[in-house]
Parts: sequence; C-alpha cells; structure tokens
Amino acid sequence: MDNNKLSSDQNIFMENLYWWGIPTLFRCPHDEDLEQCDIGLVGVPHSTGNGTTERDQHLAPRSLRNVSGCYRRAHGKFGITPWELCRINDLGDVLMPHAMVNDITVKDIEAYYKRLDQAGVRPVSIGGDHSITGPILKAIAGPEAKLTGGQPAALIHFDAHTDTMHHLPHWLGAERSAAHWGSYVATEGNVDPRKSIQLGLRGHTRTLNWKKTSAELGYGVIDIDEFRELGVQKTVAAIRQRVGDTPAYITFDLDCLDPSVAPAVANLEPGVSGFSIDEAVGLLQGLRGLNIIGADVVCMVPSKDSPNQITALTSTAVMFEQISLIADTLASNT
Amino acid sequence: MDNNKLSSDQNIFMENLYWWGIPTLFRCPHDEDLEQCDIGLVGVPHSTGNGTTERDQHLAPRSLRNVSGCYRRAHGKFGITPWELCRINDLGDVLMPHAMVNDITVKDIEAYYKRLDQAGVRPVSIGGDHSITGPILKAIAGPEAKLTGGQPAALIHFDAHTDTMHHLPHWLGAERSAAHWGSYVATEGNVDPRKSIQLGLRGHTRTLNWKKTSAELGYGVIDIDEFRELGVQKTVAAIRQRVGDTPAYITFDLDCLDPSVAPAVANLEPGVSGFSIDEAVGLLQGLRGLNIIGADVVCMVPSKDSPNQITALTSTAVMFEQISLIADTLASNT
Amino acid sequence: MDNNKLSSDQNIFMENLYWWGIPTLFRCPHDEDLEQCDIGLVGVPHSTGNGTTERDQHLAPRSLRNVSGCYRRAHGKFGITPWELCRINDLGDVLMPHAMVNDITVKDIEAYYKRLDQAGVRPVSIGGDHSITGPILKAIAGPEAKLTGGQPAALIHFDAHTDTMHHLPHWLGAERSAAHWGSYVATEGNVDPRKSIQLGLRGHTRTLNWKKTSAELGYGVIDIDEFRELGVQKTVAAIRQRVGDTPAYITFDLDCLDPSVAPAVANLEPGVSGFSIDEAVGLLQGLRGLNIIGADVVCMVPSKDSPNQITALTSTAVMFEQISLIADTLASNT
Amino acid sequence: MDNNKLSSDQNIFMENLYWWGIPTLFRCPHDEDLEQCDIGLVGVPHSTGNGTTERDQHLAPRSLRNVSGCYRRAHGKFGITPWELCRINDLGDVLMPHAMVNDITVKDIEAYYKRLDQAGVRPVSIGGDHSITGPILKAIAGPEAKLTGGQPAALIHFDAHTDTMHHLPHWLGAERSAAHWGSYVATEGNVDPRKSIQLGLRGHTRTLNWKKTSAELGYGVIDIDEFRELGVQKTVAAIRQRVGDTPAYITFDLDCLDPSVAPAVANLEPGVSGFSIDEAVGLLQGLRGLNIIGADVVCMVPSKDSPNQITALTSTAVMFEQISLIADTLASNT
Amino acid sequence: MDNNKLSSDQNIFMENLYWWGIPTLFRCPHDEDLEQCDIGLVGVPHSTGNGTTERDQHLAPRSLRNVSGCYRRAHGKFGITPWELCRINDLGDVLMPHAMVNDITVKDIEAYYKRLDQAGVRPVSIGGDHSITGPILKAIAGPEAKLTGGQPAALIHFDAHTDTMHHLPHWLGAERSAAHWGSYVATEGNVDPRKSIQLGLRGHTRTLNWKKTSAELGYGVIDIDEFRELGVQKTVAAIRQRVGDTPAYITFDLDCLDPSVAPAVANLEPGVSGFSIDEAVGLLQGLRGLNIIGADVVCMVPSKDSPNQITALTSTAVMFEQISLIADTLASNT
Amino acid sequence: MDNNKLSSDQNIFMENLYWWGIPTLFRCPHDEDLEQCDIGLVGVPHSTGNGTTERDQHLAPRSLRNVSGCYRRAHGKFGITPWELCRINDLGDVLMPHAMVNDITVKDIEAYYKRLDQAGVRPVSIGGDHSITGPILKAIAGPEAKLTGGQPAALIHFDAHTDTMHHLPHWLGAERSAAHWGSYVATEGNVDPRKSIQLGLRGHTRTLNWKKTSAELGYGVIDIDEFRELGVQKTVAAIRQRVGDTPAYITFDLDCLDPSVAPAVANLEPGVSGFSIDEAVGLLQGLRGLNIIGADVVCMVPSKDSPNQITALTSTAVMFEQISLIADTLASNT
Repeated sequence: MDNNKLSSDQNIFMENLYWWGIPTLFRCPHDEDLEQCDIGLVGVPHSTGNGTTERDQHLAPRSLRNVSGCYRRAHGKFGITPWELCRINDLGDVLMPHAMVNDITVKDIEAYYKRLDQAGVRPVSIGGDHSITGPILKAIAGPEAKLTGGQPAALIHFDAHTDTMHHLPHWLGAERSAAHWGSYVATEGNVDPRKSIQLGLRGHTRTLNWKKTSAELGYGVIDIDEFRELGVQKTVAAIRQRVGDTPAYITFDLDCLDPSVAPAVANLEPGVSGFSIDEAVGLLQGLRGLNIIGADVVCMVPSKDSPNQITALTSTAVMFEQISLIADTLASNT
Repeated sequence: MDNNKLSSDQNIFMENLYWWGIPTLFRCPHDEDLEQCDIGLVGVPHSTGNGTTERDQHLAPRSLRNVSGCYRRAHGKFGITPWELCRINDLGDVLMPHAMVNDITVKDIEAYYKRLDQAGVRPVSIGGDHSITGPILKAIAGPEAKLTGGQPAALIHFDAHTDTMHHLPHWLGAERSAAHWGSYVATEGNVDPRKSIQLGLRGHTRTLNWKKTSAELGYGVIDIDEFRELGVQKTVAAIRQRVGDTPAYITFDLDCLDPSVAPAVANLEPGVSGFSIDEAVGLLQGLRGLNIIGADVVCMVPSKDSPNQITALTSTAVMFEQISLIADTLASNT
Repeated sequence: MDNNKLSSDQNIFMENLYWWGIPTLFRCPHDEDLEQCDIGLVGVPHSTGNGTTERDQHLAPRSLRNVSGCYRRAHGKFGITPWELCRINDLGDVLMPHAMVNDITVKDIEAYYKRLDQAGVRPVSIGGDHSITGPILKAIAGPEAKLTGGQPAALIHFDAHTDTMHHLPHWLGAERSAAHWGSYVATEGNVDPRKSIQLGLRGHTRTLNWKKTSAELGYGVIDIDEFRELGVQKTVAAIRQRVGDTPAYITFDLDCLDPSVAPAVANLEPGVSGFSIDEAVGLLQGLRGLNIIGADVVCMVPSKDSPNQITALTSTAVMFEQISLIADTLASNT
Repeated sequence: MDNNKLSSDQNIFMENLYWWGIPTLFRCPHDEDLEQCDIGLVGVPHSTGNGTTERDQHLAPRSLRNVSGCYRRAHGKFGITPWELCRINDLGDVLMPHAMVNDITVKDIEAYYKRLDQAGVRPVSIGGDHSITGPILKAIAGPEAKLTGGQPAALIHFDAHTDTMHHLPHWLGAERSAAHWGSYVATEGNVDPRKSIQLGLRGHTRTLNWKKTSAELGYGVIDIDEFRELGVQKTVAAIRQRVGDTPAYITFDLDCLDPSVAPAVANLEPGVSGFSIDEAVGLLQGLRGLNIIGADVVCMVPSKDSPNQITALTSTAVMFEQISLIADTLASNT
Repeated sequence: MDNNKLSSDQNIFMENLYWWGIPTLFRCPHDEDLEQCDIGLVGVPHSTGNGTTERDQHLAPRSLRNVSGCYRRAHGKFGITPWELCRINDLGDVLMPHAMVNDITVKDIEAYYKRLDQAGVRPVSIGGDHSITGPILKAIAGPEAKLTGGQPAALIHFDAHTDTMHHLPHWLGAERSAAHWGSYVATEGNVDPRKSIQLGLRGHTRTLNWKKTSAELGYGVIDIDEFRELGVQKTVAAIRQRVGDTPAYITFDLDCLDPSVAPAVANLEPGVSGFSIDEAVGLLQGLRGLNIIGADVVCMVPSKDSPNQITALTSTAVMFEQISLIADTLASNT
Repeated sequence: MDNNKLSSDQNIFMENLYWWGIPTLFRCPHDEDLEQCDIGLVGVPHSTGNGTTERDQHLAPRSLRNVSGCYRRAHGKFGITPWELCRINDLGDVLMPHAMVNDITVKDIEAYYKRLDQAGVRPVSIGGDHSITGPILKAIAGPEAKLTGGQPAALIHFDAHTDTMHHLPHWLGAERSAAHWGSYVATEGNVDPRKSIQLGLRGHTRTLNWKKTSAELGYGVIDIDEFRELGVQKTVAAIRQRVGDTPAYITFDLDCLDPSVAPAVANLEPGVSGFSIDEAVGLLQGLRGLNIIGADVVCMVPSKDSPNQITALTSTAVMFEQISLIADTLASNT
C-alpha cells in the first residue's frame, strides 16, 4: 500500500516508520512526471569523479532512501511543513550507463538536469562524489538556464576543500573531477564567483598556498578560522550580502562537518574541528528568503556508516533544511 | 527513470546494479494493482510474534529490497526467465498500524492476503518472523480460499524447529506466535498435515520430546539426521509422494540453513550442521511441477548481516527459487 | 570468586576490570533481598512499548552489566564514594513472561516496583524503551506510594521528545506506550506536572504544535533552544525552583544527548545538537540535595553500539550520577 | 528474580532467553561452594600466554556468559538433560591479579583448580588462550590429583596445532605458553602421551617437520588428512582404543574447526578445511562412556565475533557436548 | 629493524607476527630491483574495471600486506619452503596515475608487467578487480612475451563467471573491463583457448545462454555442476590434459569460492555452493609440475571483510599455493 | 615503485592516496640508517604494560601506517612543510622478542631508543600502551642522554589519568607498567617534575585522592576543570612558563580527547568531556619554539576503530603536530 494512499489515521502510525514500505527519499512519492513537480529529489549514484580511497559514494542515494523515511515532517524554526507547500517528489536516480567513466557520466548528469531546468523543477540532490555539482550547475545555471533566468548562479559552497584545482590537468584521469568542478563552473559562466562564497575550508593540505586558486577565480572564502571568529550570525550576513538577490545554489560537502557528526564521509579532515550540526544548520537557516534554485549533499560513504547510520541521519537533516529553504521560497513567491 | 522504462540497451547495464534506482524486490515494478499481477512479492515487516532475543526481523523486507536488485534474471536449471513467464510485481509491505501487538497484526496480515487470494495472486513473501505464515495460510488455504480451491493446503515446511508448541498457552504473551502457527493452521483446517512435511528439524532442544507435537498433529517429519541418510533425491521423492497434487505452500525459515550460509537469522542452531545452500536449493528445485500456490522466507535479522549481507543474498537466492517454481507452474498451466 | 570476597589487595587489581567475573551492574552484589538494600539497580529489558524502528532496547541491561563494571568508584565532584554510603545491590531484571505485549508487561513492571516501594528501596533502572517509566512511577509515586510519602512526584525529564501523545489512542497498538507515559502519570496523579519539568526537547517534528500537549498537562519545558540561552546554571536554578522539596524522580532518555556522545539510541535526533556530556552531567550534578527517590536511563540500542560501546559507557556515566545523587541524599538524611 | 526461583510456568518463558537476567554460563546458578557442585563451569580470562596477534582471548568467558543462556536444555542424541543429572554451577572466573604475567598467572590457575580437584569437582572451562590447559592439567591430573586417582590423564586434544614447541626456550617471553603446554604436561607426568591423541592438526606451518615434537613425546596424532580418510567413526574407534579406561581430559582449541564455523578464533588456519561442526560434535559424542574428568574450550576472540556471535554460539555448542559427556559419566557412575 | 636482518633467533619469534614491522606481502623484502627477483609479488590496486556495486577492490593489496605476514613458511604437501627455493620479493604496487579511467590504467598495468616479462620475473599479483588480468596477459603471454617464449599461454581460470562478454560494447563505459578481458586475451593471441579452461562457473545469470561466448572462443569449461560430478582428481586430470606443457597462467577470481569461505568478494554468487577451500586448494596443488609463468588473485573487497579478515586470510592461502607452484617449477628447472 | 622515486608529476596524483604502495608512517621512506635521519618515526607495538580490558594496542603502528599515508603535506598554521625541513624516516617497529613480558620488553624498548639518542635522532613514536613512554624517557632524557644534554627533560603530558600509581607494587603483574611510568621517570631523574606538567586529567576515579601522587612527585597539573576555566591560551602560557627552555618531551595519551573524537582508545573516560581536537591541537601548536626532543601518541585500540578509522585519523593529526613542532625546532636551530 502506497504511503500516499493511507488514510490520515493510518498515516499517523505508518508515515514516520522507516522500516515500512518502498523506500523513497523522505517518503515522497516516486513520480518521474516533471510537470507534477516543484521540487525534485534526485539520487546521483556517481563515484568515479573522486578517485581517492573511498569509492562507494554511489551508494549514498540508496542509504538516504532507507533512512530519510524516519525523518519527521514539520520545520519548527520556519513554522512550515514543506510537503504541504509544494509538490515534492522522488524522481529516482540519474541513469548512468557509462558509470565507470567520469567524463562521460558528467555529461549524462548534465543532460538529465537540463530536463528539470526546462520543466522549472528545482532539484535537491544526494550524491555521489562532488563531481556531480559541476554538471548540475552546467544544466540549471548560466546563460541557457531557465531556473536562473539566464544568469550565472551564486554558489554557496560548504566544504573543507576548495575543489578548484584547475592547475592540475586531471585528477587520477578525470578531467571534470570532484577537484575541478569549482573552477570550470566559474570560468564557463555558470556561477558568478563574485556573488559566491566558500564556507568552512580547513584542514591538512597538500601545499601551503592551497587557497590561492579560489581567490584567483574570485570566490569569497570564509575558512573555518574566520568562521570561528565571526560566528554564525555574522557569517550569515556576509553570505547574504555577497549573494544578494542572485538565484543561488547550495552545495554541501559533508566533510565540512566535524567527523564526530558525520564520520562516513570521503576525505575526512581530522585535525581541525569542522562545523557542528548547530553551526551548519544555523548557516543554512540563515539563508531563508534567498532565491534558492537547487541544492545538493555530497560525499557520503555508506560502507563507513554502520551500525549507526549517523551520517545518513545527518545528511537527511541537512537535506531537509535545503528542501525547506526552497519550499519556503516557492511558497513566498506564490 | 523507472527501470521498466529503460531502453533494452540501457537495460543491459542498469538492470542488475543494486546501487541504482528505487529499491524494489528483484527490481520488479512496484504496482499494487492486483488485477495486473500473477505473482505478488510482499514484505511483511513483523517482529512481535517471536519475542526471543532478535527483534528486528521487521527490517528484512527493506534489506531484501536493497540487495535482491543485483540478482540476475534467468533460472539456468529450469531453463526459464520467470519475469518473462508471468506478471511479477512488488506489492509493497503489509500495513500494520498495530505492529506492536502480534495478535491484532496477525489479523491485519490475514486480511491483506485475503485480497490476494480473491484476486488469484500467488504471494511470495519476505518476513518478518515466522508468525506471519499463520495468517497467510488462514487467508489463502482452506475452505474459504480461492487459491487452493477450497481445500487445505499441503505445507512444505523448512525449519530447524517444529513451530507446533500448542501445549503453551502463549509465547511471551503472543497467542498466534511464531511458535504456534504450525499448530493452528493444522487444527483449523488451512493445512492438511497428512499431506504436509517438516524438513530439517534439528538442534539443541528445550525438552527431549520436542518433536512429539508435530507427530500428534499428523505432520510428516524428515529431521536433519534422516535427511543426512536419505540425501536430496530421496527426500524430494518423499515430499512429492506426501504432497501429491494438493495445492502446496512453501515456508522457508532461514534457520534450517547452516549458520555459515545464513548467519543473520533468529534463533540460530549452532551445534548441528544445517542444510547447505546446495541441499536447500536442491530440495526446492525438486518440487518443480507441484502446484505451488505461495511461499515465504522468514526470520532474517538484518542488524546481524553486516558488512557482507550474506544472509540477504542467501534469502534472495531462496526467494528466487520459490518465484521460479511458481512462475514455472503458472506457465505450465497456461 | 565473588568480587565481594576479594581481599582489599586483590580488590585493587580486580575491581575495575570489566573482563573479569560475573557481570553485574557496577560490580554491585547481585542480591534480591530488598531488606538489605537502599538503592536497587534494576534491569528492565522491555522493548514492545516503543515500536519504531529500533526494537532491541531490551538488550541494554545486558550491555550495561557488561560495561559498567569498569567504571571507577569515587565521585570527585561530590567528594563521595557512593558504595560506601549505603547498600547498593543489583536486583536483577524485572520478570516479564508476557514480554511481547506491552500493556500486560507494563503491569508486570508496576507490580515489581511496588515491592521496592513497600521496602523503601530507591530504584535506579536501566531500560528498555521509555514506556517503562510509566509503571515505575505508578508504583513508587502518588497517593499509594511510600517513597513519595503518598504525594505525586516531581518529574525531572531529560528527553528530545515530549512523550505526551495522549491525542493518539495508541502507538502502533500499545496504549501505555513510550509515547504516552508522560501523559498518564500526570493525569493519574503519580506526577505533579506543576512541579515537573521537561529538559532538552528538540528536533525534527511530526507537527508544528508538537509541544502543545506537554503545556496542556502543565509540565514546565526548557527546550534545547531555551537551554542554549540559559546555560547550565540558570537551568539548574529553574529546575530546583520548580521542584522544590517535592520527592523527585529523574528519567533520562539518552536521545537528549548529542548523537556523537550517544549514537546507539532509539529515534535519534540528528539535526540539532543535543546536550554534551558536560551539559547533561552538569544538570544532573546541579540536582544535588534534592530528594531523589529514583531514576532511570532508557532507550539504548545495543546492536548499534559496536565496536566501541560508547553509548554503554555514556549510559554508565549518567547512571553513576543518578546513583550518586541518591546515595548523597540518603547519607545526608541519616 | 533469580532464574532458579522462577515457577515452572515462568521458566517456560524465561529460561532460554539470553536477554534476561544476570548472565551466567548456561544460566547455571552462580555458586562458588565446591561442596554443592559436581561439574564446575569456570571462566579463565587469560590472554598473555599466547602473544600472537589476537590478545583479547580473556574476554571469552564474558562472551559465553552472555550467549550461552539461550542454549536449550536437552541432549537429544544422548537422551539426557544434563542439568537434571547432577549439580552444575557457574563458579565464576579464576582470579588473576598478575594477569599481565603468564608464568605467574599459570600458577594462579593451577592453585585454583587444585581446590576443585580436592573437592572432586570436574571442571568445564572456557578460556582464555591455550596456555590455560597446562595448569589445569597440573592440578587435576597426575600423581597428586584426586580426579585421576593419582595417575596421568589421557589427553584428547582437538587442535590445528601441536602446542608442543619445547624446542623453543619461550614464546615471546612466556615459558609455560600456549605453545608449550602440550610438552610439559607430558614430560612432567600429568598426561600419559601413549594414551593421548591430537586430532585435526593441519595448516600452514613454520617448518616442514612441525609434527615431529609431538611424535617425540609419544602423542598419537590423527591429522586432518588422516581424519578425512578415516571419517568420524573410525577416528572415534582409534581414540577410544588409545584412551581405554584412563581418566581422560578433553581440550578443544576452536581453531580445529573450519573458520566458516568459528571465525573469531586466534591463529586461524585458512588454507585447509577444518572440522565441520557435525564432524567435531560427532567426535565428541563418540567419546560417550569414557571417564571424562574435565574439559575446556579455548582461543575464542570476542572482538572478531560481531555482529553474529557465531563463534560464541559454536563454543556454546561444543561446551554443551563436554558438559553432557561428563554429566552422563557421573550419572552412569551412580 | 628489517625482518631480513633479524638473527635466526629473533626470527623464530618475530617472523610470523602480523602486528610487527613494515607490512609487505608474505613479509618478503620490498625490493624493486627486477634483476634480484625470480617471483615478483605485485599489488594492482585497481577498481574501475568492474563497476558493479563493490568499488573498493583497489584496497585489497593493502589488506593482503597487512594479513599475509602471519602466514607461515613451509608447504607441507609439496615438502618445500618456497622462500628458500628462489628470490621472492614484494615489488610494491603498480603505479596508476589515471586510476579513475580503466582503459588508460589497463595500459599502465600492461607497461608495468612488460618490464617484468623482459626481466624474466614471474608475477604473482593481488588485484584489484578482474580487469587486471587482461593487461597482465598482454604483457607476459603471446608473440612478444619472453616468459611464454613467444607463444600464447594456457589460461587456468577459476571463476564463477565467464568474463567473456564481448557481445557488449563496453561495461558501464569500460571497454577492456572485468567482463571483457577473457575475450580479448583470446582473440588477440595472448592466450590459446584450446589449451585453456574455465573452472567453477556457476550461479544466477543474466541470460540463459550465458556460457555460449566462452564456448565460441574455444575455451574449455568445467562448470560447478560438472565439477561436482568429476571431483578434484578427474578435474585435475582434465586440466592437465588440456594444458599440457604450454606455459600456463592461473587467474583466481575469489567468487569461485563459496561465500562462507570468502565473503568479502565482489559479485557474490549466493545460490549455488562454490568451491570449498579444500577443493580449490586441491585443484591448485594438482597443477604441480606444470610450467606456471604467473598467477593472480582478484576481486577481494576489504570493506566487507571485517572484523575477521577471513577473506584476506583465504586470499593469502590461495596466493601461497600459487607462489609455491611457481617456486617448485623454478626449483625443478634448475 | 617507491614513492620517493615518483616523478613530481606522478607525485601529485599518488602521494596522498592511502590505498597505494607499501604502507609507511606518513609515506616517509622506510630507512633504518640513523645517520640519515633527523626525526625518526617509530612504531612500538607493545600491549602488555597496561592489562586492562583493551589488549590490542600493539596493533596501532600497523593502523597508523595504513591510514597516515593519506595525510597531506603542509602545516598551514606554521607555514612549513616539515618533510622539506629535515630528514624524516620511518624507522620501523621496535623489536620485542619477549613481547608477552612487560618488564623485559620495557628494557628492549629502552635499548632501542638509546641508539637513537646516541645518533641524535629525535623520535616521534606511535604506541602501544602508555608503558612505552617510560623506557623512551629512560633512553633519551636524563644524565646519560645526549638529546637532553645530560639533564632531565620537561615532560608535557596529555592524559586523562595520572599514570603515577607508585603506591601499587605492580599493575596486574607489571612493575614498569602504564600506571607507573610517570612515577619512575621522575624519581629516577629522567624527567624534572618541577618543569613538567600533566594536562587534561579528568574522569571517574578509583579513589577520591587520586591526584595526590602526582602532586607528591612535584608535577604541575592542569586538570580538565582548570583547563575549562583557563582556556587554550592561558594554559599554553602556563606550560611555557613551567617548561622554559628545558628540552621537552610530549606524550599524548589519546584518552585525553573526547571519545567522540577518539573512540578507539583504551580506558575511555565517558562522563566528562575531554579535549576537542581544536583544543588539543591548539595546546600543541602553542608549544612552538620550545625545544622538543621527542614525542609519542599512545593507547589507540585498532579493533574498536572500524569502520571509520576516526581514531587513526585523529592520531595521525596529533602526530603530525608533533612532527611539525620538532621539524620547526630543527629548522630554527640551523
């Protein structure tokens, strides 16, 4: 029996039980009809764009479908129930018949999201490694994109790393890799770095000048040390000032969080405390009212998440904030 | 993109990849329309009918949806591809808004399966603890059942235990429990014990005369010692002779298997070797041609199945044999 | 050789080694004689009162018996060694021959604790799901209770959730469930809500007005946001003012803690930071001098606690604070 | 409530539930009074006699106390219920205040068992590494031992290895180590090698002549290849012929089993199949009627046994056979 | 202190202890000088040639370096100590700076092994996924290869699958994939299918005629059913007859083993028993005297191998048989 | 191919990939030539000096070799790349042929480090339990030591415990145990307690006056409560004032960290928050400019660190700070 068909009485008991029924993201209907959808939840089971040790990031959509069903319904801080504000469906996973080849798959991902852009569906995606954000932005931001009205997007980029390693010709063979996407979306006009900001950079680094390339591209950066001085509210203000009313996209690499909050993540940064969940959620909630056209959560590694599924739960919480921000935007626009 | 909508070319690559798409049992379509269904795959996420140590048997349908998607398509021994022979859909999970109370839930399960019986859909179910087999048989076998033509079914019962503990008033409070179902389906006319057989009983026991109640009810029994003497072929012959052409139901409690093959199972019996997978599959394949009206796999405990998911894979293999037997029956009947 | 019979010399080496000997809670003697006992440590291995995903909360007493043995002896902040102040015994587990049926078992639990109340033994219990707190309070607080002197108790309730869902007729079939106990102990006179307080409520919620029912009943509430503003000391002051000299009971649902501190807990709340261990312990220590008649720790899920047993260790630490508060009370009374 | 005090009605429900009550071996009473005991179950939490990679063999008694409680009561093959035939108590663990020093601890173990020998209590022990068998035999076998009537015992030794490495002066510093005990019990007169036999030796070896030392000492050997040729029955005959009516001791190193049956074991031998559980149990049951004065199970490594506890269950099954053999002996003697 | 520099006395204690020292394969010296090497142990940490669910097969060399150090030294059946017969070094891992792109990496692997071929070093490799066997054979077998004397090799191929899916243009984007290598080594002249044989094919299959392509190419096949009829000795005879004195290469895909023996393996086949370790080792030992020029073990998935490392141990045992076969060949040739 | 021999281009891709190559600490060359070394990284796989529950602390060097390879290269705060400032090699593990006997092994460790002291190599070690710090200090500090110029060292001791239990004659048989080293290095002149300080003491304690022995010896103590009041900067000032320009040694027992940051640690202290990683790293970085002659990280328990290896990553981060401090000292001295 489909969750959507439960009587309201039955719903009380069955709707939040993650052990029951066909697993979809947040128990939303699995419906691929883009015409019936305002916010599209998408799985992007891709893992050949990163190539470091952890290679099962393609399993994260499956993990979130299993766990997010237990997440409850209302956003207390915003005072909204997003599922009542607009149509939110699980669109399934991006098809990737060349999954082993990053540079082909990146194009398949882009083609998939172009359909959403044309239909005006705002995507909230669960990766996959961080290379998926490049093709998403290629599809839904920039001169040809409907969702941004033909302009480059403002990128609000939570990450421990810059992902702007354009000085390397490729990353273990992948040219549009998880290490490169931050560069090419800027240089190819999908993102306006002057409106964009990287948040939470930290950690052990390959070279001393590792943050230089982001600066060269024009990105704003509030690294973790600056954040510790500013605190959540001033950081929010800095983001809002930079983004303004530009259509904005949020990408959330889970490694910006402290490993104690999100242990099952690729390329963990153990030597500096990352964001606590309160800090990360505080920053996200501070974005309320911005015109968020899409968002993603990336770099979860399910094989490192047992037996607690803490990282899947944390990812669910972050994704819920992203969904709520967009639902709130859509409801306000109406 | 729904698996059913893939081009045949795409299908080659995506159909067996368990990391991709919405998880359904064996990647079958999730479709609750009983009119469009010959074999209905059903999850029965029930765990309050057993009550011994392991209490997360309700998580097994979820586990099988995640893992069975990688199972391939053709039955080499039978020379068939069951999905091409008839319509096999994932019907979802039985709704159980009183999940915490076994004796109510058992009635909910029965009501659910009555609908299948009326529609002529043959169920292959994944439990849940073994108490689910009682209500399934109440619904699809016996005087009121359409699938058996109004007669009691022959029960082919794989198990380490008898499940005929009618001398106990209840099992930790549950009256129609995993320890009782084998008795009441016999005494209430849903199963004909004289046509039925229990296979693989073994193990450490509470009392010396633990097999007496099954005998009293009239069940045939081939315990593990007898099986070791007979071997697969003679055991198959004995089953077939006993069952004859009576409509038959197969229930497969995973504890009949050796723990090395199926470690994540409730009430493991460690001191005597259980069936190997070749033996269990050999017995199942020996049933080809019988009129199998339904089947189930029960007692998987997902929290004990990491990191290998061996038991989920084994359960998938057993369930595939059950599906193939029924598909073959249906194809032969046509 | 029993720990109690070790020479003091042997004691130095063997008393804190959790790998040695028969496991009892905190290595206390297992002695069921209520006449020889001031504080009774009790296991309540119950898990059919909750019914959401995690169903092995009945295994927590076993887990604590295994792990708490390594916990050391002295309470540095209080300057006491509780085991020297009064007689503290492990009373074993509550017998529950109808374990599968919550509403019968809840009565069995109540009957068990009535014996303790009559004997003047103050219980410190390890659950089990949170439905156990209802029958404990039925037995030891209110008009018939000896421990409270016939009056309702003040309830000091650490939790992420309200547990006052009396608007639901049952919770998955259980009427005196983990979701209902907070209501019926108030309406049936075992607890005085005006003297009682809920601490740490937070999280993702089913409905926007989820805290309304606690307010209706008259409970005080300091949710996590209010706590973050008040800090430990002002929160302690608020609790003490509310409780006054009413005999008080402390119930500690581990989900009030941050998942990084207590990951193996039912119904985790991942999107808002919970109490740190310093905050939780700070609040507990702030209760020194109140007349604490009993306490419990609930909702641990041992199958999610490997390989570190962090949650068992954290539970041990919380339980030690509870024991110390009561031992200190008893010593002061003398 | 103590298991022993349950009404027979309650017993039906609670006696086999391993989640309930104070954990003792096989739910036997914890009673250290040697006068009230025929068979003493003893934990020997020792791990500094082995010293190879796996060093938490001291945790095995704890593991068995937790798991063996679910094991049922009757021995179907023998037609006995051992607990009804004689007094079987859990004596607790051997005290070892110098646990870190093998050569002292070995003496502490010997002293402990001498008390059992004097009281005529037959021990069934759970180690600990295999160095514990030396001091047990020093205490209960040989010229000064009461249990053997002052003669050397026949040793029935299940193992993948010889444990007769007397050509080495010590094993990583331990002189009476897990690698030496098989030698010194022979040369010091506690065991008569001509009556004794090593069963199941196999595996990858340090030197080509690794079995030479056992032969030198006079032990009989049936290695795994010889066993594969003889089968269970002829091997049983060979053992019985060698042992005759000499008081016999059974030591069972779990590494004689196949790793698929007992994975959480020190020094696993992966390249040659070990005994299946049917083979091991078959050999043990074949010893019925011999005068078994004691037995042990050794070398379990609990930290490698999650999440299934398969090895703890297997160890329980082996220990149950040992207990049954001795109970049967005692009952026959009466 | 390097293992090679230990005194023989120290060696007794430290050589087999896997917790000690720098991890190399079988504790062999890490020495990349091909002139000083007869058998080169090589890690091939490659995982983008398979692309199904399990993608951390690149971690297996690391896993084997950690575990194989505990494996002992002598081959009892052959009566040899391989490390004394020839120079066996750990050559380290193949460098793969384009690791994310299978079709480039496959060329890097080939180039690496060409150096070994030129130096006359016989490789025993630990993969990685099965796509590594293609480039190894391109390098060391066929017209240009020194190790085979310019002729195609006989391939002795242990596997559950054919790996001859040349009817597919690519496997998830990889053209020289784990599904294709068996075809192109045959059609490109590196392997002579008429001298070659596939052993142990079994399992659930995509199509009914899945074994057709191997037959088309001319490979001999003894699938698991045929093996069950023939037994080890007749299968050995069949292999030897087919191979004759052609230089032979052994590739061992761990999925040919039963999952109970090797659970941490990609693409497990759960529904049919695979080889037991005795059967697999029996077949390998039966190859003694053939002219084995190289061998590999592939498809281990370390993230599924905890906490027991059973699969790493099993892989070690298989690799030891391969090393011993080659060492024996080399010693006989001298 | 050795990491050191990679072209700089190859290095970009392979140097930080922990799945690649022979595992050494931080991917440093394994070179035992003390003449070619400024900072020697040493594994001390010792676990018989502690003896409480967790006994596989000897596996930590192996764990760090596996994981530290992914750690990046530059120290952003110091603006240095330590590997470029001096010669840092992995010296391998200390040989310990009497590993099972603490009091002999402690001497073997001392002898090993005396060679480093003579060669002027500053050691950064990974234990092993905390008993290793005693012999290291015996070798490199005090009247005979070259590294301290013949004077006692200042000890900067991070720990939850005092390790000064000289009132006990031994700790489970070990005299120079993990509980004693802090005493004897002071009384025997290797450390000057008046220049030394213990940081972070906290937790549940055996006796109320547990900190007395440290005071008696003259150590400075800033326990966790004092630290919470002082904060990082004032604590740093207090340390620097106490140490002055005395040659200093840093020992870092991981239990000083909060369990959420370092869960796989012996003797965890769950009831009081430990240092966060920012606090611990802040304290370490505050030591810049002191004359650090050596350092260690101890008490990691690898079997409790799966599946995330969080503790290994945290240990790596701490060790990197220690290496950087010494490299910076050496560079400044030049």
